[in-house]
Amino acid sequence: MQSLQEKIINEGQVLSDTVLKVDSFLNHQIDPEFVMAMGRELANRYANDKVTKVLTVEASGIAIALATGLTLRTPVVFAKKKRSATQDPQAYSTNIFSFTRQEAVDIYVNKRFINDRDRVLIVDDFLAQGEALRGMADIVEQAGAILVGVGIAIEKVFQGGGQALREKGIRIESLAPIASLTGGRVTFTHI
Amino acid sequence: MQSLQEKIINEGQVLSDTVLKVDSFLNHQIDPEFVMAMGRELANRYANDKVTKVLTVEASGIAIALATGLTLRTPVVFAKKKRSATQDPQAYSTNIFSFTRQEAVDIYVNKRFINDRDRVLIVDDFLAQGEALRGMADIVEQAGAILVGVGIAIEKVFQGGGQALREKGIRIESLAPIASLTGGRVTFTHI
Repeated sequence: MQSLQEKIINEGQVLSDTVLKVDSFLNHQIDPEFVMAMGRELANRYANDKVTKVLTVEASGIAIALATGLTLRTPVVFAKKKRSATQDPQAYSTNIFSFTRQEAVDIYVNKRFINDRDRVLIVDDFLAQGEALRGMADIVEQAGAILVGVGIAIEKVFQGGGQALREKGIRIESLAPIASLTGGRVTFTHI
Repeated sequence: MQSLQEKIINEGQVLSDTVLKVDSFLNHQIDPEFVMAMGRELANRYANDKVTKVLTVEASGIAIALATGLTLRTPVVFAKKKRSATQDPQAYSTNIFSFTRQEAVDIYVNKRFINDRDRVLIVDDFLAQGEALRGMADIVEQAGAILVGVGIAIEKVFQGGGQALREKGIRIESLAPIASLTGGRVTFTHI
């Protein structure tokens, strides 16, 4: 998505060889029109896949997931995070490791909101090591639903999470795939 | 907002005299079209107030804040939560107590995203004791910005948070003000 790649170049801050900050329009301050455009683009890529539900995880995935679900005319479910692993029989849950926060966290989804008739599109703002996606895919599997694919705003391809998931046969669409952040410079792949 | 009150009656679950669960359309699963309608309604109530920024707090306020900001054509900022109070000179921060989680939490906003030329509309999904709003109003004040008002989906009027803030002169618009949840029944006020 050309406009997203331009916005990353213009507004993104490369903090290190692995960290790109885009808090001016995506995950602290949000540009509503622009997030809607990203959601429309992700929805278009899955327009023929009979998606019944969009799944994301709180908090920064919510905006782009909402925009995607609005276009696809499906409900949006956001997995919630909790620190303690109190087993709730009414929820699907799994444990993921946050590299950003350097801590493990449980995510869960109430069983009322995904079931074995659902065709789920997972949406998130970032894909790096793929821990959040792996956890959400696990929840989709627990529900017996079909995972149609994944829609991502920014994929840090060099961190390998996307490759590992693609090798499992999961379709991933990234609006801005980044090959490298080396030397303070954003280099996009051309896939 | 008649449609919201009907949705609360039809889909809400009264868990106790103080707890109303609306996770089927607002804060776990989201009904995108409906959240957009709520955002438009809140935006309409502040259409003439020259709002320059919508402020909410992660996570469940993000969807309705995005919908409001989209209509008002303003950026949306969501305050982030953190457990430890590491002082960041680049951020406004304040401490709030979450009655739901029974713990204190710090919320913060990067100083780049609110400044003394801003006219801020605070938006959130729920208003109960008003702790989150008090914290966000504190951040608006730290920034030297003008607090135009507050837009809320569901206000539990009987918990008193709204009254305390109105007595300080803060304008609050609630789409569904609830007088009581006693006896498992939702009773709306007529304000």
